[in-house]
Amino acid sequence: MLEALKRKVYEANMELPRRNLVTYTWGNVSGIDRERGLFVIKPSGVEYDELRPEDLVVMDLDGNKVEGDMNPSSDTRTHLVLYREFPQIGGIVHTHSPYAVAWAQAGRDIPCYGTTHADYFYGSVPCARNLTPEEIEADYETNTGRIIVETFRSRGIDPRYVPAVVCRNHGPFTWGCDPAQAVYHSVVLEEVAKMSMFTELINPQASPAPDCIRNKHFLRKHGPNAYYGQAKK
Amino acid sequence: MLEALKRKVYEANMELPRRNLVTYTWGNVSGIDRERGLFVIKPSGVEYDELRPEDLVVMDLDGNKVEGDMNPSSDTRTHLVLYREFPQIGGIVHTHSPYAVAWAQAGRDIPCYGTTHADYFYGSVPCARNLTPEEIEADYETNTGRIIVETFRSRGIDPRYVPAVVCRNHGPFTWGCDPAQAVYHSVVLEEVAKMSMFTELINPQASPAPDCIRNKHFLRKHGPNAYYGQAKK
Amino acid sequence: MLEALKRKVYEANMELPRRNLVTYTWGNVSGIDRERGLFVIKPSGVEYDELRPEDLVVMDLDGNKVEGDMNPSSDTRTHLVLYREFPQIGGIVHTHSPYAVAWAQAGRDIPCYGTTHADYFYGSVPCARNLTPEEIEADYETNTGRIIVETFRSRGIDPRYVPAVVCRNHGPFTWGCDPAQAVYHSVVLEEVAKMSMFTELINPQASPAPDCIRNKHFLRKHGPNAYYGQAKK
Amino acid sequence: MLEALKRKVYEANMELPRRNLVTYTWGNVSGIDRERGLFVIKPSGVEYDELRPEDLVVMDLDGNKVEGDMNPSSDTRTHLVLYREFPQIGGIVHTHSPYAVAWAQAGRDIPCYGTTHADYFYGSVPCARNLTPEEIEADYETNTGRIIVETFRSRGIDPRYVPAVVCRNHGPFTWGCDPAQAVYHSVVLEEVAKMSMFTELINPQASPAPDCIRNKHFLRKHGPNAYYGQAKK
Repeated sequence: MLEALKRKVYEANMELPRRNLVTYTWGNVSGIDRERGLFVIKPSGVEYDELRPEDLVVMDLDGNKVEGDMNPSSDTRTHLVLYREFPQIGGIVHTHSPYAVAWAQAGRDIPCYGTTHADYFYGSVPCARNLTPEEIEADYETNTGRIIVETFRSRGIDPRYVPAVVCRNHGPFTWGCDPAQAVYHSVVLEEVAKMSMFTELINPQASPAPDCIRNKHFLRKHGPNAYYGQAKK
Repeated sequence: MLEALKRKVYEANMELPRRNLVTYTWGNVSGIDRERGLFVIKPSGVEYDELRPEDLVVMDLDGNKVEGDMNPSSDTRTHLVLYREFPQIGGIVHTHSPYAVAWAQAGRDIPCYGTTHADYFYGSVPCARNLTPEEIEADYETNTGRIIVETFRSRGIDPRYVPAVVCRNHGPFTWGCDPAQAVYHSVVLEEVAKMSMFTELINPQASPAPDCIRNKHFLRKHGPNAYYGQAKK
Repeated sequence: MLEALKRKVYEANMELPRRNLVTYTWGNVSGIDRERGLFVIKPSGVEYDELRPEDLVVMDLDGNKVEGDMNPSSDTRTHLVLYREFPQIGGIVHTHSPYAVAWAQAGRDIPCYGTTHADYFYGSVPCARNLTPEEIEADYETNTGRIIVETFRSRGIDPRYVPAVVCRNHGPFTWGCDPAQAVYHSVVLEEVAKMSMFTELINPQASPAPDCIRNKHFLRKHGPNAYYGQAKK
Repeated sequence: MLEALKRKVYEANMELPRRNLVTYTWGNVSGIDRERGLFVIKPSGVEYDELRPEDLVVMDLDGNKVEGDMNPSSDTRTHLVLYREFPQIGGIVHTHSPYAVAWAQAGRDIPCYGTTHADYFYGSVPCARNLTPEEIEADYETNTGRIIVETFRSRGIDPRYVPAVVCRNHGPFTWGCDPAQAVYHSVVLEEVAKMSMFTELINPQASPAPDCIRNKHFLRKHGPNAYYGQAKK
């Protein structure tokens, strides 16, 4: 079942090592079929060079395994919460890419210092708070997802406009309209996390890009008046 | 038309990913035929591994598309201003290479700390100011070019002697006598931007190279008494 | 003799350059056969691209060479001490990987800043003290091993829970249940050393991950209730 | 003439790009035949992927070109001074490798922070002073060599024990008993320059390795009681 989606999720997973975003098995990609309410995700702890499309696990949005011989990613319940609460998204990625992890471990939002960031993320990439001991104990992975959602809601951030988060002391999650775009956003996030660290090393008083630049660049690529790229047929 | 120039511009574009200067489509190269007053530029948003010489777009210096099925790079009007105002240049490159972007985001000129820099850039590489909201609204890409020109004129910098700029909160543009040399200068700029950041991390009080070293190295490679390399036949 | 173990130790050694952990000959892997009390180690100063399984040296736990034409690694006596004093371990790695070396040279424990670290190391990776001139003079390599053991005992660290150390002004040693896992831990250590440095550059006041996160992540992968990966058959 | 030496110098030059020590043509290797008093050096400004053994230039120690169609490296007179004043050396390398350049631009000696450094360099790698305007005017490249020699003599450093220098606002030179060893020392220098920068970022108060460690590691690899590696036959 879901052969086309499995193929997309498989290709998106394999893009992670090609883009140098994962060490060993430290990452996973999922994709959802919204009509059927099912998502496909990488199995837990499987090496990328041994992963096959048929190893992918199919889950429903209640957390039941619908198909697959293997255990799904240990982060599956985090994906599940994001799919339920962010109904516009079609794919999710988690990695431990080092620059994004460093911002997560530093406990800081990634400021929008320039157009590279503004082209994809409309404002700072937020850093979600740590879980409490009770939240960890009760259901670690589900609560990781809930805190991401809480972060976006309480701060009034639209997840379509900022398709990324860094979770305190943990690492990044990104999403997109499909698995491939979610991976694209992981690549951009890591690049932006690196550039932002370098920016502060060169000028510790650097200030974020003005709103007018942030708006111009995001809207040049997104929304009804976008003019970057070739017109979609 | 302009088949030889298209080939050069194509090769110069393809050099960007080989030199690790671009992620996805974040860069573009153009080259000009001064006699005809036409320049050739990468189409907007096309992946490098799908780019073909025939995809390149031919533009005139009034901003009209003369040949090509695709939209030209969204930065085309910036290139156009530079070709009009810097009549000595034959090729232009824009990238989001991370160290050069970091200096742009930090809002700082890149100081000339040594001979690697002095061999190609005669003094600091200037950081051009941000656009005002009005300049962004009126014509973002044209005004980006105008501010680069304003920076060089107001500071008395000859663009042949400093073939590079970092635009505040944005990133680098470089140029040269032809598209290949413009790419060469992008490679040098990224290397110099990296070395300069490292220099300040090792010694926050580091001082720029003395004028005598700056002069010696630039003039060893450039001008009538240059003696680096093999005599051109 | 010990052909299967030699093959494992050979493969583990060859993984070091593939993972970019060694420059020239700056690293070595060993593995032990606990039943026979013999361990197999890389010969000293041999380039990785010339290393053959039959070049490996077999040692007993009194430091006698049992088989092999070449001199064993100059760090052999350090391995020997660790095998004697940490009876649970089956493989040992030493490298000069740059981020781990930098923490060793800085004389600092590597703090547990997040889940990447906590997945493999239960708390800080300790920095072992320098040898005294007398300890260097008497038996440098043996005393390096003794100081590692002293560090773990005096601080109450279980070497199975923190399978890594950085030796002051020197570099890292890691270990594991077999040579392959010891190499895996060297890769993780270098990645964690890099992320921790970046974390402090982004936020000099960054605080280590709370105990609850450290416990959750380590125990999610290790111990009786682990649920990461696929069940072992 | 000197076919065997040319082959060695050619191979040593080609090792520079393989080890990621050069961008474009920014580096050169030479080697000397002490009996004949002739040295072989890379031609100026030739790309590495176009370099052929027969392009190498043969020079005598008075600075006369003895064989070769091309101009020798613009740094030839620096090599010449070092061969005359350091009679024990057989090969010389100059690069613009970024971490070593950063220490040169920072105007600082590279401290011996640990055993990676101590295995090859007996104490700090010195930073040679800038040339005066008069020294630049009179004979830039010759005076670069003289200042290197002045640095070692005035500070009582034996060039066999510290086979490397960083020239203020310029970059590194290394040497060795032959061209291959000189390249080896360039690789080590860059690695050590990187580790030392990282060390200070992790601990700005880091102190150099104690003398006893410095002595132990250098003498473990060098001198009559060396015991690293395999006995030479």
